[in-house]
Amino acid sequence: MKTNLILHQTHHTLADFDAIFQSTVELLKGDGLHVFPELYLTGYPLQDLVLQRPFIESYLEYLNDLDLWAKKASGSWRALIGGLHYEMENNGFPKKITNVIYEVVPGVGLKNLYSKRLLPNYDIFDEQKYFSAGTETAFYEFNGQLFGLQICEDMWASSVHELDPCKLMHDEVQKKGLKLAAVINLSASPFEAAKKKKRFDRARNISLLFGCPFVYVNRVGGEDEILFDGGSFIMAGSKLQLEMKSFEAESKTVALEEISGSYSEKPEIKAENTWEGLFSPRLNMESRPATLKVWTDEECEEVMKALIFGLQEYATKSGFKKFLVALSGGMDSALVLALVKIGLRPGQSFEAIYMPSVFSSPVSTELSEDMCRRLGIKLSYFPIKFLHSAVKNAFTQNFQEPFQGLTDENVQSRLRGTLLYTRSNQTGAMVINTSNKSELAVGYSTQYGDSVGAISLLGDLFKSEVYRLAEYVNKHHGNYIPEGIIKRGPSAELRENQLDQDSLPPYDRLDPMLEGILSYRLGKKQLLEAGFTETEITRVLNLYLKSEYKRAQFCPILKVKAKSFGFGYRMPMSKNISYQF
Amino acid sequence: MKTNLILHQTHHTLADFDAIFQSTVELLKGDGLHVFPELYLTGYPLQDLVLQRPFIESYLEYLNDLDLWAKKASGSWRALIGGLHYEMENNGFPKKITNVIYEVVPGVGLKNLYSKRLLPNYDIFDEQKYFSAGTETAFYEFNGQLFGLQICEDMWASSVHELDPCKLMHDEVQKKGLKLAAVINLSASPFEAAKKKKRFDRARNISLLFGCPFVYVNRVGGEDEILFDGGSFIMAGSKLQLEMKSFEAESKTVALEEISGSYSEKPEIKAENTWEGLFSPRLNMESRPATLKVWTDEECEEVMKALIFGLQEYATKSGFKKFLVALSGGMDSALVLALVKIGLRPGQSFEAIYMPSVFSSPVSTELSEDMCRRLGIKLSYFPIKFLHSAVKNAFTQNFQEPFQGLTDENVQSRLRGTLLYTRSNQTGAMVINTSNKSELAVGYSTQYGDSVGAISLLGDLFKSEVYRLAEYVNKHHGNYIPEGIIKRGPSAELRENQLDQDSLPPYDRLDPMLEGILSYRLGKKQLLEAGFTETEITRVLNLYLKSEYKRAQFCPILKVKAKSFGFGYRMPMSKNISYQF
Repeated sequence: MKTNLILHQTHHTLADFDAIFQSTVELLKGDGLHVFPELYLTGYPLQDLVLQRPFIESYLEYLNDLDLWAKKASGSWRALIGGLHYEMENNGFPKKITNVIYEVVPGVGLKNLYSKRLLPNYDIFDEQKYFSAGTETAFYEFNGQLFGLQICEDMWASSVHELDPCKLMHDEVQKKGLKLAAVINLSASPFEAAKKKKRFDRARNISLLFGCPFVYVNRVGGEDEILFDGGSFIMAGSKLQLEMKSFEAESKTVALEEISGSYSEKPEIKAENTWEGLFSPRLNMESRPATLKVWTDEECEEVMKALIFGLQEYATKSGFKKFLVALSGGMDSALVLALVKIGLRPGQSFEAIYMPSVFSSPVSTELSEDMCRRLGIKLSYFPIKFLHSAVKNAFTQNFQEPFQGLTDENVQSRLRGTLLYTRSNQTGAMVINTSNKSELAVGYSTQYGDSVGAISLLGDLFKSEVYRLAEYVNKHHGNYIPEGIIKRGPSAELRENQLDQDSLPPYDRLDPMLEGILSYRLGKKQLLEAGFTETEITRVLNLYLKSEYKRAQFCPILKVKAKSFGFGYRMPMSKNISYQF
Repeated sequence: MKTNLILHQTHHTLADFDAIFQSTVELLKGDGLHVFPELYLTGYPLQDLVLQRPFIESYLEYLNDLDLWAKKASGSWRALIGGLHYEMENNGFPKKITNVIYEVVPGVGLKNLYSKRLLPNYDIFDEQKYFSAGTETAFYEFNGQLFGLQICEDMWASSVHELDPCKLMHDEVQKKGLKLAAVINLSASPFEAAKKKKRFDRARNISLLFGCPFVYVNRVGGEDEILFDGGSFIMAGSKLQLEMKSFEAESKTVALEEISGSYSEKPEIKAENTWEGLFSPRLNMESRPATLKVWTDEECEEVMKALIFGLQEYATKSGFKKFLVALSGGMDSALVLALVKIGLRPGQSFEAIYMPSVFSSPVSTELSEDMCRRLGIKLSYFPIKFLHSAVKNAFTQNFQEPFQGLTDENVQSRLRGTLLYTRSNQTGAMVINTSNKSELAVGYSTQYGDSVGAISLLGDLFKSEVYRLAEYVNKHHGNYIPEGIIKRGPSAELRENQLDQDSLPPYDRLDPMLEGILSYRLGKKQLLEAGFTETEITRVLNLYLKSEYKRAQFCPILKVKAKSFGFGYRMPMSKNISYQF
């Protein structure tokens, strides 16, 4: 008897119970074993939502409806779906919440098969805050075949974990002399540049360990800063038997018999294909000074897709159909605008607003105009010279104290922030932030000025990665960014002849240093070993350590790296920093 | 032989190793058992700092120095100090981190006695993210007396926890027939209005359970939004034998013999004196509609002290000696300014800036002037009429589209934000935010406008609590706030004759509804049961659910409640909300 596996990588808004119910009913057609992602029934991550009474009550009601629907359904199918299981107190509060796999059995209803054992609790993950861990391995029988069940993190345990669900499952397989037809993993695994290869490496080794295919079903969704890319797949030994789309809902059917077979290779569990590889960054510590890995074209393509997806998700879920970007004539805003253009959907529009001050060079105006011509839009020109001097005069008048220096630089930036948001109020457009990760790390921006925005597209890309992506986008997705923007030296243009390089080390040294500080958590001693000079280290560490307060009030940043600023970056502002020097 | 207990409630900046070393050497004088707070050696909460290599290396070096110092020290004392214990990987990364009690033994060095068993992982607490839990009860012998050891949360376990360190200790005491001289708890327990009574209730019951005094040593410190109040104490049965200061470092010596004795009462462990009571809010669900408990004078005093302490901590640690507040003629900014005045230290100064627009009533000017007279400062007067109309004209000119309505309201607020920060840049003063919790909950503020600031003083106080505290402060700490400000109806003054009550339910209904939503996690159904009307519930839930994005970019809020906005409030922005109605 043929056994079909039907993989559904789904895409829904968090807690959109009606839509998810509807899609469940529609997707559960066709004989075989249907597999859905982790927490398919609710979406992920839910954070405090899982504790809210209206959420709990609605969820339990809808779970009950689903159970009733299944009781009345018929057919030769089964489904494995991710959901929440609540054990309630008498007072209506949850006593215990588990992240589980339900089996849907037509004519019978829902059965709770398995509770996730390895609850990720690092970086953006807070699962131990909300969920209790399962304690049992789960095997599942369908059509006379035996399957091992996992939820997401269960597959990733490394030597740093106290428990390895893969190993525990394998021990049981060996002890009981079982033969698995496949290991099935229901995932909600965030996107990260170049993560796909890591998933494949790990899957290959699990497949070889169990001598059966490894079936991986991941969700699709942009949840504020966190992006789920789908990319579900089946790995049979070293052979990728199926690979599904990135950032798009999709269903695929595969006959288990067609992907089965025996493998001659042996598994090789190395740190690199466990959690340690997943969460480790990609700084080349062998070279002196340490360098950042340059993204391949393929990696550029997936990062571009991720950023556009994340932007569209946030806009759609917040109800925006218009975008607004402040164009400066520099690299960051140009790339943001190009990405908006490439990702634009029917019914959407965007506006670029250029707000030159007395320090903006004529070249910036020309390049901004050129950029808009290429995009086929009109540049909204809004000079701030007059308002800038009006504020200056008012200060002289009210405080008998004219301002200058940094104050004068910040005024320009904050006036732009105010005007940009006024325009946003007027047109109902969503403001997209244009800061990059290098800037954010050293605080090279004005709070409530150029740092404003509903969401940050480039806040997880170092400046050198912004250039790399711009070059790629220009080459493969439309030559939107004028060469002049890519070639000119970066400048904030907030004072005469200002260049980033006056205040910061060159980006090819700054960026790897920052990656070392953020991802490898390095300090002065290790940075010296990595080949940086004492002068540049002191300068950069000082800027980084003193700008925590700016990052604390920054907008959500679309996350495309293992270590990003945002929800997973938790650093006290008030602290002694002297020991770092 | 007399046994002295010497309690040290200490106050240091996070990771200020040199200062902590110095203070350890200075405090360890006098015979007896010295007791320090949880994580005394590093400060708390450290969050990602515990993973940073420079932090780890400096800490381990200083721990070693302390060990060497102890080896050379002499005397008839011992010390119990809270610190971190690292188990390292070969690659320089931590494998396992525990939150421990070290014993300092003169002539011998440091000994790791105990690892915290109950790691709080709810709300602002992320201890399971960083620490591994201990698995053993610890008893400690000194001077022939036996002590039970705990760290903070260990004392609070309730029926929702899988493990109760108090109970486990008691089981062991009974099984082995031990007699304890005291239970000693090293704490780092955040302040919360009216929490003191809960600590006493719980302590009393633990003391009665073990038939010996309960010794509680808590740290002092303002860590961004989180405030540690000290208030260490000894509870012997129902008798409070010692109570130390709030929000101030202090050392106290007590002879164990003088506080010992036998108790006739029996312990009574109820939910209210466990974690459930600690973390539960104080909404009166018996009354219809539900009401907020009104703060007593004593509670007002401690909240006032907490806010001033938190402000001073943040300012000192960030290096500010000047404060800047935008005065509006309304209640919130008046209270903020009064608190700044009351807490002002030698060498510090503050400025009030009043920025009337065309919609500001003459009464607001008069009241602001009156307030400043009472405070003995000059009011900085900065009308925004001209800038406001200049922006308006520029929009008409550049976009052929004049703005009005909400856009016009927001412009005024954002111009004020820009001017306030320009003044801050010019004078080096720290901007104090003036938003309250009611406003924050319903998004009744302008992003980058009146919501700016380095830190929020009133962001954990509902508007009705702002009034209550203002009344208290005026009566007991100087009559700084003009009666006219307290009596007038709240208004944002961003359009003609605007009143808060045009957009919001009255605060005596809004505030308890918000407390229900935030602390009890109620939805429409439960709010209806609590006596609110469908109309007001729909209006408030709508405003609350749609303003998540404003709170996401808000400044740190001094936390004075169990449930506050800020680090412990984790709610996705992108989500379906329709099931809430």
